[in-house]
Amino acid sequence: MKAWHFTGTNEPLIEAEIEEPKAPAGYVVIDVKAAGLCHSDVGVLRDPGWMGIIAKTPIVMGHEIAGVITELGEGVTEFAVGDKVAVCPTGPSGEGAPGYSRDGGFAEKTTAPAADLVKIPDGLSFKMAAAGTDAGMTSYHAIFTIGGAEAGQKVGMIGIGGLGQFGLQAAVAKGLEVYAVDTSDHALKLAQELGAKKVAQSITEFKEEELDLIIDYAGFDTTTREALATVKAQGKVVLVGMGKLETTLNVNDFILGERAVLGSNGGTKEDMADVYELMQSGKLNPTLTEITFAEIPAGIEQLERGEVVGRLVAIRE
Amino acid sequence: MKAWHFTGTNEPLIEAEIEEPKAPAGYVVIDVKAAGLCHSDVGVLRDPGWMGIIAKTPIVMGHEIAGVITELGEGVTEFAVGDKVAVCPTGPSGEGAPGYSRDGGFAEKTTAPAADLVKIPDGLSFKMAAAGTDAGMTSYHAIFTIGGAEAGQKVGMIGIGGLGQFGLQAAVAKGLEVYAVDTSDHALKLAQELGAKKVAQSITEFKEEELDLIIDYAGFDTTTREALATVKAQGKVVLVGMGKLETTLNVNDFILGERAVLGSNGGTKEDMADVYELMQSGKLNPTLTEITFAEIPAGIEQLERGEVVGRLVAIRE
Repeated sequence: MKAWHFTGTNEPLIEAEIEEPKAPAGYVVIDVKAAGLCHSDVGVLRDPGWMGIIAKTPIVMGHEIAGVITELGEGVTEFAVGDKVAVCPTGPSGEGAPGYSRDGGFAEKTTAPAADLVKIPDGLSFKMAAAGTDAGMTSYHAIFTIGGAEAGQKVGMIGIGGLGQFGLQAAVAKGLEVYAVDTSDHALKLAQELGAKKVAQSITEFKEEELDLIIDYAGFDTTTREALATVKAQGKVVLVGMGKLETTLNVNDFILGERAVLGSNGGTKEDMADVYELMQSGKLNPTLTEITFAEIPAGIEQLERGEVVGRLVAIRE
Repeated sequence: MKAWHFTGTNEPLIEAEIEEPKAPAGYVVIDVKAAGLCHSDVGVLRDPGWMGIIAKTPIVMGHEIAGVITELGEGVTEFAVGDKVAVCPTGPSGEGAPGYSRDGGFAEKTTAPAADLVKIPDGLSFKMAAAGTDAGMTSYHAIFTIGGAEAGQKVGMIGIGGLGQFGLQAAVAKGLEVYAVDTSDHALKLAQELGAKKVAQSITEFKEEELDLIIDYAGFDTTTREALATVKAQGKVVLVGMGKLETTLNVNDFILGERAVLGSNGGTKEDMADVYELMQSGKLNPTLTEITFAEIPAGIEQLERGEVVGRLVAIRE
């Protein structure tokens, strides 16, 4: 079968002809119907720092996977051949994410632990399901599972890019008042269209709003610092983005207002299921751009150049 | 009556003869029986940064107050003349702390909002009650109210000084396993005597212990950073000490393990009541050194020179 192989930092993806995978015990084989592209794919290709979490080379990239089960490994009883499923990349199996710990989804077929699978509800497209695995789940997890947001609260969101657009729509759908921040006017215009209550270039402009929660999807050090200085007393800042490796925070901001900074990483199958419910209701309707599997390397380059609005999803027919 | 007046940074305390206070509406007058000395008193005397939260000069210092009510202001019904009470310096009245927002406890009498008072249980000395108002309450609040510690958990504590000694005893009394950190061998010896499971010069030595919670009573930047790198995944670091004004934290430590840093400031009347219960049971028996009211200026100088083991409490008879 055809697959896109990553061989090393700054090496182009290689279109390889490899053997179809078999399902180890506890795993299934999935016929990949849709595979999402992510900014972290740019990171893997360009930044040698990512090699530490790549289990082997060459490896098939792609960690946002939706498709149909074609084979069950030993002991898998909760799924059947023909089931439509998506893979939670931070699922409970402990086996790690596709495209990092094992061959991923930029191929005709891939494998995944049954424990990490979420059934795709009737009527939801493979394209939407793939986009929901990472961008949808991760943005949702930060707001609701880590941040504990509740209807009626005021939430700031920094970075209305790939994650922020999902987060904003999900938050509005769940009855939150969203204060959106981005340095791009284009992103702020989109934020307004998606239902943000107010938009600004810096979170500090919302100091008077007494925000209950701020999600930092950017993580550019100053964004986190400003969020901690802006959130109300007893409020929380959730850190999702890894724009910089370190952040320097004011100790008074922590202590005098008993504020908190909480790290958020990926999400759970429950988060994915919630996201799929919002997608089915039409309340979460992200901008997705469809490409073919042959266009995956060009798509990653587009992401690198910042040319993509919304998310890219490769569709196999 | 006699009172110790603070007049400005780096000025000596002045023994003043002032009028006895009257109780405004909602306040009581307290005959001060015991007033604790705190490292923040050194800060007020030496660091001009504290002037921002001093409401007036001259002001009577002292924010750890226990005594007997001698007068009730208008509208105070929940207390009676003769009641033994202590003042929660971060109480719910919103009127601020004695010694900062109004004249404090280094005097024969002082005032306090009835809303901030905690009754001293029978059999508990004024000395213990005074020490429980700040050091006891603040150290307890960080572990249990902010940190949410539960019996059986492993908790690291950085800084076994004025706060840490209270925190360590309270934690051991409540069934936690304590891993104590200090740079002083003397403090580590004390920590062992007070029931610490293990002691070390750096929190990083406990990386393998998978600590659920770490309380940073020091707040010296590297201590917080090392705590975040050491606490287990999904664990919490509670920041109490303000040794440095900024802390530089590793973003990966936050995100990859979904760790959290939470600020803790003072405490509540409920924390104080819990501390008094532990004191009454004998399980929390802090080292207190008794001085006279005349010795307060010399006591603050001893604190500044780091010569004090445990806490100093001035007793008026």
